[in-house]
Parts: sequence; structure tokens; C-alpha cells
Amino acid sequence: MRRHLLALQQLDAAEITRLLDLAQRVLGGPPRSEALRDHAIATLFYEPSTRTEISFELASARLGATAVRCDVTRSSIQKGESLVDTVQTLEALGAQAIVIRHPSAGAPHLASRWVRCAIINAGDGMHEHPTQGLLDLLTVRQHRGRIAGLNVAIVGDVLHSRVARSAVWGFTALGAHVTLVGPPTLLPAWPSADDRFPRAPQVTMTSSLAKGLEHADVVMALRMQRERQEHGYVPSLGEYTGRYAITSSALATARPDVLLLHPGPMNLGVEVSADAAYGPQSGIHAQVTNGVAVRMAVLLWALGDADTPDRGAARRDAPNELPVRDHAVAEIVRTVG
Amino acid sequence: MRRHLLALQQLDAAEITRLLDLAQRVLGGPPRSEALRDHAIATLFYEPSTRTEISFELASARLGATAVRCDVTRSSIQKGESLVDTVQTLEALGAQAIVIRHPSAGAPHLASRWVRCAIINAGDGMHEHPTQGLLDLLTVRQHRGRIAGLNVAIVGDVLHSRVARSAVWGFTALGAHVTLVGPPTLLPAWPSADDRFPRAPQVTMTSSLAKGLEHADVVMALRMQRERQEHGYVPSLGEYTGRYAITSSALATARPDVLLLHPGPMNLGVEVSADAAYGPQSGIHAQVTNGVAVRMAVLLWALGDADTPDRGAARRDAPNELPVRDHAVAEIVRTVG
Amino acid sequence: MRRHLLALQQLDAAEITRLLDLAQRVLGGPPRSEALRDHAIATLFYEPSTRTEISFELASARLGATAVRCDVTRSSIQKGESLVDTVQTLEALGAQAIVIRHPSAGAPHLASRWVRCAIINAGDGMHEHPTQGLLDLLTVRQHRGRIAGLNVAIVGDVLHSRVARSAVWGFTALGAHVTLVGPPTLLPAWPSADDRFPRAPQVTMTSSLAKGLEHADVVMALRMQRERQEHGYVPSLGEYTGRYAITSSALATARPDVLLLHPGPMNLGVEVSADAAYGPQSGIHAQVTNGVAVRMAVLLWALGDADTPDRGAARRDAPNELPVRDHAVAEIVRTVG
Repeated sequence: MRRHLLALQQLDAAEITRLLDLAQRVLGGPPRSEALRDHAIATLFYEPSTRTEISFELASARLGATAVRCDVTRSSIQKGESLVDTVQTLEALGAQAIVIRHPSAGAPHLASRWVRCAIINAGDGMHEHPTQGLLDLLTVRQHRGRIAGLNVAIVGDVLHSRVARSAVWGFTALGAHVTLVGPPTLLPAWPSADDRFPRAPQVTMTSSLAKGLEHADVVMALRMQRERQEHGYVPSLGEYTGRYAITSSALATARPDVLLLHPGPMNLGVEVSADAAYGPQSGIHAQVTNGVAVRMAVLLWALGDADTPDRGAARRDAPNELPVRDHAVAEIVRTVG
Repeated sequence: MRRHLLALQQLDAAEITRLLDLAQRVLGGPPRSEALRDHAIATLFYEPSTRTEISFELASARLGATAVRCDVTRSSIQKGESLVDTVQTLEALGAQAIVIRHPSAGAPHLASRWVRCAIINAGDGMHEHPTQGLLDLLTVRQHRGRIAGLNVAIVGDVLHSRVARSAVWGFTALGAHVTLVGPPTLLPAWPSADDRFPRAPQVTMTSSLAKGLEHADVVMALRMQRERQEHGYVPSLGEYTGRYAITSSALATARPDVLLLHPGPMNLGVEVSADAAYGPQSGIHAQVTNGVAVRMAVLLWALGDADTPDRGAARRDAPNELPVRDHAVAEIVRTVG
Repeated sequence: MRRHLLALQQLDAAEITRLLDLAQRVLGGPPRSEALRDHAIATLFYEPSTRTEISFELASARLGATAVRCDVTRSSIQKGESLVDTVQTLEALGAQAIVIRHPSAGAPHLASRWVRCAIINAGDGMHEHPTQGLLDLLTVRQHRGRIAGLNVAIVGDVLHSRVARSAVWGFTALGAHVTLVGPPTLLPAWPSADDRFPRAPQVTMTSSLAKGLEHADVVMALRMQRERQEHGYVPSLGEYTGRYAITSSALATARPDVLLLHPGPMNLGVEVSADAAYGPQSGIHAQVTNGVAVRMAVLLWALGDADTPDRGAARRDAPNELPVRDHAVAEIVRTVG
């Protein structure tokens, strides 16, 4: 049976640890194998992303699989073909896994209900980016040997960030404490009802960078979108940078062995400074390398028992019921369905 | 010697049957072989098409060949390089086969006169789409065990359809009877001289969907282009849909075991309804899967004796004289040459 | 240790000859090997180029390497990610070589200072196009058996041509005499100080095509950009063509066994006529084929000792100091840095 990876939220601590262990083994393994030689992996990116798409392509190649890039900007998808028809076509063409990046939260979940091949979420709207969460966890575990008990500060535009959502799920599932740091306009609206962002006892919030970095073992700087200024979330990028940019001197207020993470691409001089990004506490380069290993692990996990008899059998009778939160499904009904 | 596939019209019943047999064997074969390991296949699509281009890429990969995508929108072709120079360059780069999709009828035929590598037509203007014709035939043969004696109704914009042209050639060559169904403005102008569409004793026409579907073993719904309404071929898409859309209830008027085909991408709710497209009589999903097998068979057929001594020898002295109708050549002289 | 190929200027005659010998051996070798099976090669083209990018992709495939295309037009690079961040990301993703085409002279050199993987220049601004220079040399050597002592006429827009710069270095390094031919506005401004173009005793200039072709063993026609007319470098393309186009009759004034080269894509009827381009003295088709062999040789040369222990070690401490001229570095400081 194929497994979908729609959200870190669908995985418990044991399953996440299993994936991290597999990724770590992959890093020590041969640069190329034939493990998925008979498999085709399609990438279907409705938003461009160099590093994520190439990361999945290289992960596929290192496992001996064939990767095909579905160029959304040139295809019949632009003529209005629905997401469901597109993924069903890719499945009929022989794809055993489809990697989806989509601007709408829940799109991969919708797709997973209409195919039997594996759906891998490579980032959906403001929902999740599970392989990013896994590579963040792997990078921290490599540097600190563990996740449990660490203090993780996630700084910036938390409210709109799928990277932050996956990180919060992953880090808290493995026992870390997370502090969300940013201007009040870019943080979840707790304690009022805001089911768009996961709450857990191990998550706190502050708008003070100084407080957020105090005792931090890990600082994750989020990409700041220029549009946030235009839409009034911050008075100006300059003011945001003055208060929340992660610089070497800001890092000096955290734990001595603090690790800096950033999902990339960076806006150098906005949410992170060059001295911090390229400094000795940066794990950003390692994150990219770990991303390939994590995606290899996810493909192996998703396709591991791929040769079961039901391959290619009739679909649509057994939708996958995964614990994705209802708001995400509601959102796609509005924007995709 | 390399073989070109420019049109189904170039193949007789025995050759078509040979290709279908090969495709059927491929479907039962291993997911991946090294049959064309030393070969490079270039795809050159002047019109975008997700499913056809990826289908050829996956067919190449499953045979061990290297597929390279020639991105027309980004290339020197946009600077005005001619089709002939482009295919000669691809041949000189080492492509043993070039798969061409082009808006002008006859473009693959023109290309074939200037290279020794194999040219595969992946759809040229209103001329032909031979691999689509083959996958239609294969899908019908799988479901019914034969083609001869069946009644095939092709419904919609027949006049502008290369899919219809290839289907008419293929089905009549194998002994089926074809009925073309659509508004008079979208059917060939027989009995007056209209050499743009093949005529044969086994082909009839009607503008009545009821008559067309009566006794039909196969119903092929053609994609309806929105432009047809703008150019006055139909009063409105709504009126077209009301009279010619293939729905479950329309299918109920055909033979009980009728098979529904559609070349994709579908305009659901225009030329075909969702209940028909996803219903038990639909062969649309099987068509896509068969498309990969058919393209593998065509590549094997075209490149099977690839290692003859003349590989890479001087070109341009022995143009391939294939029985493509003169109107197609005339058209490219106007639009490509 | 990895080797960069930033410019032909960095190579002496012995090293160039070694690369040509390797390319010639590759041409006689198997169509496909596993020599670079464990390697990933990224192509990063900031200017589109069908033939060069596909040439590197096919060269990679024939050596068993995985080629990934970094689609600049769709990627975060458009969001303003710097060249340095992009190449560092590609390296972290596992690319052992990055093939760069960039509109700014010196961009590959800048990139090479910030990564340990191999950087291959596939054309940078008006600086160099070293693999083009190597394929020109290989084509001439195949036809004439040698380079030393030959007369090479380079005709057209020499001033703006990276192809001409690489050719001048390569041909003079191997002992040929080069004549630059074109209107005075499109030739270097010698003898006044013009360090943008290499000078050597074996290089002369003339604005007379008749004089330039007299005694020529090789004629290289350069692509004429339409913009040159708009910016006043030539009164009109027609006038340029009348005086400098390479036709069969122009070739008849050179040595009887003269060889015609063109880097492609051709503007037929502008800088070269169809009768010359497709005539018996044309080596243009052979140039394209040799391009794949040269790029295979360059990849083998660049990655040959790839499995040294420092693979993946810390970067940025030992920038590569290659003898690229200062003007190129100065230019990137202005346009890229």
C-alpha cells in the first residue's frame, strides 16, 4: 500500500523519528541506488520553487527512479483542467508518487482522495510543508543529538507560514518547547478561537525578540514577504528588520551553541543578516543537504511496499481518511473544488 | 534504418496491428528495460501538452533511453530559428528520434525530409495525431477483443480535429464503421470536394446525436474549443452542449456495452458530463495508460534497427517519401516554410 | 579536487590539447557509460540557449550523470535570490558541477569563489564561451589534422562576441593566425587601450572581407544581432549583409579547402547564406556533434578526481584564484554583486 505525506500532523513521534532515522541512514549510504528503479515520480508545482522541486528530482534520481516535471505554466492545466483530472492523468501515465506544491491549503489532501498513488505535500497554502519540517528536525538533531527539551524560537511572519506550522507540529511532537516571535499582527490570535494554527502546551508567544531568544537553542528565521508591508501587517520592512532581524548580535543573546535555521530563499538584510546567515552558528547550508536525504526517506517510506497487487486497480472507492484538520478541507472547497 | 511515424495514413492494417500487438506485449512486460539504453529522444512541442509530452518522456525512460525536453518558449526557436535548423541541430546533438507537436499540418513531414533520425508526429495542426489514434484502437481492442465490424461514433468538432482524422484512418483500416456526429458546420463538407478529410465507404455522417449513437459500440467525444463559439461555428457552447454532450443518458441509447473515449483534457460539462466520464462505460483512464505503452511500441518500432552503419552519415540526399497527402505539405509551405 | 572551466584563457596549449584529445576519444567511445554515475550536474541558464543546455544535458546523460535543469524563469531567482546563494544552494543539494550561462561577464568566476563544486562557464556576457571555443578547435583539427599555422578569419560582430574571444585565445594558443574581419565599429579599438579584447602578435584586423578571406583556411561567421542596427553599430542589416555575409562565392575567394564555422543559431541570409551554410565546405553540423563530445570531455576533466575526501567540506575559505582578467571581475561587481 502507498502512503501519503500530507502533513506532519498526520504522524506521531514514533513515525517522525522513523523517518529521521531513515534520512540519517540515507546520508551515510551510497550516492545512488536502484531502490526505486521501476518507479516514476511526478512533480506538480503550481507555485515555482527551485530548491524544493530540484531536491525531489535529485532524491528520485539517487534512488534510481524516473522524475518527470509537470510544467504547470505550459500545460493544459492552464486551460482549466482541474487538479483532480491532472493527478488522475499523472497516475494513469504511471506515476507512483505525485509531489504537489499548491497555493491552496488542502489541495494535496483533495488529490489524495482521488488516486491510489502516493501524494507528497511539498507545501500547500498556509497549511503545511511537511518535508521542510522534517529537514528542520533532522538538522537540529544532527547538531544537538536530540530534540526533546530544546527551546526553539520561530521568528517572523508566523501567521502566514506553512513552514512554521509544520515546524511547530514536529518540534512539539518530539518534546521541544516552541516560542513564536513576531509583531502581534503576524502571530496567531490566541487565546481567542484561531483553529488555523495548532496550539499545544509547549507553545508560547511573544512580540519581544529579546525574550524570544533568551534560552533559545534553535532560532528559525522565516522569510518575510514584501506583500506584508503593502497589506499593512507591518508599518515598513525597515521597521520590521530593525526589531526582528536575526543578526550575529541577536544570536549572541541566545544560548552559546544556538543553531540558526532558515527555509530559504533568504532576503538577506531583511529577516536575516549576512553575518548570521554565513556565520558559524548557521545550519542553513546543512538544511538544504538534509532536504535531499529527507525526501529520499519520504519517497522510500511512501513507496516502500509499492508492489502490492492492487497497483493500478480501480480507484475512487476508498478515499484516504487522514487526520487533516477540517479548516484545510473547507478552504479547498472554496478555492480549488 | 529509422522509421518515421508521420500519420496513421502511412500504415496499412497489418502494420497497425503489429504496433498494437507490440504495445499490448509492452503492457505485460517489465516496468523498465534497457532496450533503448543508448538512445536519446528529443521532445519538441510548439504547442504545450502535459499528457502527450510526459507520456513520451515516461515511455523513453521505461525503455532506458534519455529524454530531453526542448523548451520552445525559452529557446532560440523564438529568435526565429527555422524548424529545419532546429531538427538538424537536435539530430547533430545525438537525438535518434524527435517527437514533434506543431500547430501547422505537415510540419513533421517537412522535418522528416531533412534528417535521418526518426520523426514522430505528436499532433500537427488539423492533420493527424497518430499515437492518439493507436491508443484509441488499443483501448477498444482491449475492451472488445476486436475492431472489425464495430460501430464507432466520433462526436463533436470533427472538422478541426486531428484526433478524429487519425481515428478515422485507424478504425476504418481495421474494418470498423465510423459515424461522424456534430453540427453541420463542424463536419466535413462532403459530397463536395473536401480533400482535407479522408473519405471511405465505411464512414457516414449525421447531425443527429440520437442517430449517431444508435448501435454504437464506441463513442468518442472530441474536445470542444471555446474559440468555435467566438468564430460562429456554433451559436453558443450551451446550445452545443444541449445537443451533443455525451452524458450517461446519451450513452444509454447506444449498445449496452458501449465504450466512451475522450482524448483529454476534458471540458467537463461541455462535450462530456462527469457522470459519463467517470462512469462504468468510460475507457478514458485506460486510454492514458495505453498511451505510454503505444509510445513505447512506436519508439521501438521507429528505432529498432538503429545501429545501421549509416547512422550519422550525410543527410539531405534521400528525403523520405511518405504518402502524406499533398494538402498538408502545401499548408506547411504557407505556414512554416 | 574539482576543476573550474571559466575561460579558455586559463588553459595553456598543452591543457587545451589534452581536452581535445579526450573529446576525440569520447567520439569513438560507447554512446553511454557510467563514468559519472554518482554525479549530479545542474544547468543554470540566465539566458536561454537550446543547443548549449541540451548539449550539456546529453553529455551528462551519456556519462551516466543526473542532469537537473534550474529553470531561472520560474524560480526564486526571480524573487531576487543572488547568484551566490543560488549556486551555494545547488551545491548543498548535491550538484558536483554547475553549468552557468549568464549575461554578465565574470559571473561564473564570481560563483567559483563561493563553492567547491566545479563551475563550467557556458557563456558569460561579452567575456568567454570556452566550450564553444573547444568545439571550434576540435572541428578544425578533425578537418585539417592540425591547428598550428592555419589562417582563421573571424567575421562579423567581433566586439560584442564571447565566441570570438574564446576562439582567439584557443586558436592563437595552438599556433594559428587569426584575422578579425568586420566594420570598424564592430572591431576592437586597437592600438588604443582596449583591454576588453585579447591582443597577440598572431592577431590582425581588417574591415575588408576580401582581404580577410584571402588565404583563409577557416572562416567563422558570427551571429549578427538585430540590436546592432538599432544602436547604430551598422547603418542597416542589409548593408552589413551586402559587405560581410559569408556566401558560396565569398568562400570561393578563400583557400580551396576552406572550412566554414558558425556558432548557431544562424540568421540565414544575414551573416551567412543558405548555400554556404549547407554547402560542402560547411562544418556547422559537425560543430554541434562535437559540442556534445567536448562537453563530455570537460565534465570528465572537471570531475575526474571527484571522490577526494574534502567533498562537502566547509567552503568559502579557499577561493579559486584563476587568471581571469580584472575587467571581467570589475564588471560583475557592477552588474551582479
